[in-house]
Amino acid sequence: MFKKILIANRGEIALRVIRTCKEMGIKTVAVYSTADAESLHVRFADEAVCIGPPASSESYLKMPNIIAAAEITNADAIHPGYGFLSENAKFSRLCEEHNIKFIGATGDMIDQMGDKANAKATMKAAGVPCVPGSEGVISDFEECEKLAKETGYPVMLKASAGGGGKGMRAVWKAENLKEAWDSARQESKAAFGNNDMYMEKLIEEPRHIEIQIVGDSYGKACHLSERDCSVQRRHQKLTEETPSPFMTDELREAMGNAAVKAAEFIKYEGAGTVEFLVDKHRNFYFMEMNTRIQVEHPITEEVVNYDLIREQILVAAGVPISGKNYYPQLHSIECRINAEDPHNNFRPAPGKITTLHTPGGHGVRMDTHVYAGYMIPPNYDSMIAKLIVTAQTREEAINKMKRALDEFVIEGVKTTVPFHRQLMDHPDYVSGNYTTKFMEDFVIKP
Amino acid sequence: MFKKILIANRGEIALRVIRTCKEMGIKTVAVYSTADAESLHVRFADEAVCIGPPASSESYLKMPNIIAAAEITNADAIHPGYGFLSENAKFSRLCEEHNIKFIGATGDMIDQMGDKANAKATMKAAGVPCVPGSEGVISDFEECEKLAKETGYPVMLKASAGGGGKGMRAVWKAENLKEAWDSARQESKAAFGNNDMYMEKLIEEPRHIEIQIVGDSYGKACHLSERDCSVQRRHQKLTEETPSPFMTDELREAMGNAAVKAAEFIKYEGAGTVEFLVDKHRNFYFMEMNTRIQVEHPITEEVVNYDLIREQILVAAGVPISGKNYYPQLHSIECRINAEDPHNNFRPAPGKITTLHTPGGHGVRMDTHVYAGYMIPPNYDSMIAKLIVTAQTREEAINKMKRALDEFVIEGVKTTVPFHRQLMDHPDYVSGNYTTKFMEDFVIKP
Repeated sequence: MFKKILIANRGEIALRVIRTCKEMGIKTVAVYSTADAESLHVRFADEAVCIGPPASSESYLKMPNIIAAAEITNADAIHPGYGFLSENAKFSRLCEEHNIKFIGATGDMIDQMGDKANAKATMKAAGVPCVPGSEGVISDFEECEKLAKETGYPVMLKASAGGGGKGMRAVWKAENLKEAWDSARQESKAAFGNNDMYMEKLIEEPRHIEIQIVGDSYGKACHLSERDCSVQRRHQKLTEETPSPFMTDELREAMGNAAVKAAEFIKYEGAGTVEFLVDKHRNFYFMEMNTRIQVEHPITEEVVNYDLIREQILVAAGVPISGKNYYPQLHSIECRINAEDPHNNFRPAPGKITTLHTPGGHGVRMDTHVYAGYMIPPNYDSMIAKLIVTAQTREEAINKMKRALDEFVIEGVKTTVPFHRQLMDHPDYVSGNYTTKFMEDFVIKP
Repeated sequence: MFKKILIANRGEIALRVIRTCKEMGIKTVAVYSTADAESLHVRFADEAVCIGPPASSESYLKMPNIIAAAEITNADAIHPGYGFLSENAKFSRLCEEHNIKFIGATGDMIDQMGDKANAKATMKAAGVPCVPGSEGVISDFEECEKLAKETGYPVMLKASAGGGGKGMRAVWKAENLKEAWDSARQESKAAFGNNDMYMEKLIEEPRHIEIQIVGDSYGKACHLSERDCSVQRRHQKLTEETPSPFMTDELREAMGNAAVKAAEFIKYEGAGTVEFLVDKHRNFYFMEMNTRIQVEHPITEEVVNYDLIREQILVAAGVPISGKNYYPQLHSIECRINAEDPHNNFRPAPGKITTLHTPGGHGVRMDTHVYAGYMIPPNYDSMIAKLIVTAQTREEAINKMKRALDEFVIEGVKTTVPFHRQLMDHPDYVSGNYTTKFMEDFVIKP
C-alpha cells in the first residue's frame, strides 16, 4: 500500500481525498497556490507545499512544480482529484516516468477516451451503442437522404464547424429534409465560411444518465449503477440523483452491462464514468467516458455504502475488485452549492463568508472546504460545497433536501442555495419528469 | 397526522425533532427560556414561544407554561425529547387532559417503568431475566446463606440505605460470607444508622447493552438491535456503538426477543429502550426501561436506515408498525461532545464558541445546535454536539472517528474532543474489550 499520497488539487475534493487517506492510515501532502494558503486541505494534510501563485496555469496545472513537490516529500502516489490535471495524459505519463503512481488512468487510456471520435470508435468496437449517424462529413444530398433513412427520423443535421446552434436543423420527416439541408448549409457558410455537414440521430427528450464503474489491474470491472445528471445549465451539472427517476431495472441492467463491457474492453483501471444520453424510448447512447472521479460521486457512495476514493487507491495499489455490481438501496440527491448569484445569470460571486451554518442530522452529508471567515478566491471554479441527502425514497429525499437547504445559513456571498430550494419545489423536478432541456425554461423567482 | 407539534425541549434534540417534522410536512413550535433566545431550535421552528427565565424549573420543567404555549399555538401534539419532562407521568397525563397528544409513554406506563422495584417485578412477570437476589431485606444470616446458595456465587451484599460503595461487599466463596455479612452490616450501621441488607448476584465484567424497541398502539412491538453504552463515567454515557463488539447473533436474538416480550407484555407504545447488564458469560439481566428517545439513538438509525423520531410520530398518530425486527448492516459510533474540560475532571466549561469547523464527508453525521458565535449557557447539560460515524466495519468506523475528531475545530471553550481522540487509540477500546468499569482506570494524557 502507498505510504504517502500527494493530492494535486484544492477545495472540497482535496479534503475528500485527505479524509479517506487518513482513514486508511496513509500520509498526505497538500499542494496549494498562494491564494489557498488558508484552505482546509492545507490545514488537514500531514504536509503542505506551496506550488505557485493563484493562476492555475502557474500552480495547480504546473506539472514540474507538482512533481517536484512529490519528490521532495517522498510521496509515492499522486491523486489528481477532478479537473486540473486529472485527465491530462502527459501528466499521467510524467508521474510514471518519475516512478510515482498516478491514481487515475494511464496516458494511453486518457488519450483514447479524451478524443471524442476515438472514444466513439472504440465503444462501437466494444459493442456499446453510440448515437447513429454519418461517419464524418456528408458528401452530397443523395448521401444525406440515404443516411437519414438508415438512421431513422428524427435526425439532426449539424455543421461540422458549428457551435451555438448555428447550422443545426432537426428534421422529423423525409419531406422536410431537402429544405433543412439547404438552409443549414447556407447558414453554416454564412457563419463559419464552410458548409460541411454531418448527421446524428436526434435524441428525443434526452437525459444525461451516467454509469459509475471501477476496473482493476487484472482486467475486471464492475458497475455501481447510475446517476441522473440531466439538470444542467450550459452543460454544467447543478444537481444529481440516484437512482434516476427514469430508470427501470431492465434499463439499469442493460446500461450497467454496456458500461462494464466498455471498461473491460479497454482494460480500464480505476474509477471511471461512462456517460450516456437516454431518449424517451429508453434507448441509450454512449456520450463520453470520464477517466477520473466525478464531482457527483458521493450520491453513489451513499446508496451503495462504498468509498469510491478508497477503491481508487486500492485498485491503484493493485488490489483486485470483487467483480460484483452494486445497486442502489436508498435514494440520494446532491446539490452543488456554488458561490454564484442565481438571480444574476449565475454570475460568480467570490468573497468572504462571514457567517456559516451547515445543515446536519439524519441522512445529511456535507462535503465542503469552507468555513466562517473563509475568503473564496476568484481564481477557481465557484463550487464551495456539496450538500448530499439520502433517504428511503425519492419523495423523502426531496423533503430532506428542502429542510437541509432551509437550514443552510451562509452570509457574505451569494450562493445557489435559493435556486436549489426552488428547484426542489418545481413540479417537473418533483415528478421526475425532466430532461437536459429542463433549465432552458426554468425561471428563478426573486 | 398531526398538523403542528410543539417540542418541549432545547438544544440538539429540539433541532433533531424539528428536522423530522419539516421532512414530514408538520409545522413546529419551539419553546425556549430567555437563555436560549439565540438558539437554532428557535430559529428553525415555524413558531417560537418564550416560556420563562433560564432556570429549568421556571421554563423547560414548567408544565403550565408549556401547555399554555401549545394551546395558544394550536399544537396538537408535544414531543418532549429526552430529559426534562420526557419521563414525567404527570406531564404526560396533563397533555392528555388538554387533548394534546404526548409523543411518549402514557402516565401509567411511565409510573410503572419509572419505579425500579415495580419495573423489575413487571419484567419478572413478563419472563425477562432480572438480576437474581433477595426480594427486599434479608432477615438474618441463615436466610443470607440460603439465598447466596440459590443465587450462586459471586454475590453482592448491599446496604438498603447504601450509596457510594458503603456497606457493599462482593463475596466469591461461601466461606467468606459470614465475615462479609458482619462487616457490611457494621459499616452500614455506622454510615447510615441502619443495617438492613439485601443481596444481588454479582455481575462479572458488566457491560451496559441496551435494546431499542418500538411499539405501536395495537400491542405489537419490534426491536432494532443493540447499542453498547459501557463507556461511562459516573453513569454518564460518553460514547456508544452498535453493534456491540461483545455481541453474538445468538445473544442479540435472545436480548431482542426479551425486549420485544417486555414491550408487548406492557403494551408499550412509542420508542423505548430496554437496558440490560450483560456479564462475561453473556448472561443478560434487565436493568431499566427508558420510556423516551435516547441521546444515542442516531447510531441505530445509521445502521438500519430508520428515522426513529419519524417512527415515534407515526406510532403516536396511530400508524401500525410492520413488526419486523432490524439488524445492523454497518458499524456506527457516537461520541458525545460536551463543553467540559477533560483535563480538569470533566468540569463543565460554558462560554462562547469563537471558531467552529465541524467534520463532514462520507459516513459522518453531526447533530448539533451550536455555531460560531454561540454562547453556551451554564444552565443546562453540557452536551453541545453528537458526532456519529458509520462504516462497513468497526475498525473502519474507529479510523473514521479519529479523522473526524482531528477535523473538529472548536475554539473558545474546552470540550471532550481530546478525550474521545485518546479513547479511540486506547487498546481496550480498540479491541472492544471494555466494561462499565473501563473509565475507572482511564488516564487522560495532557
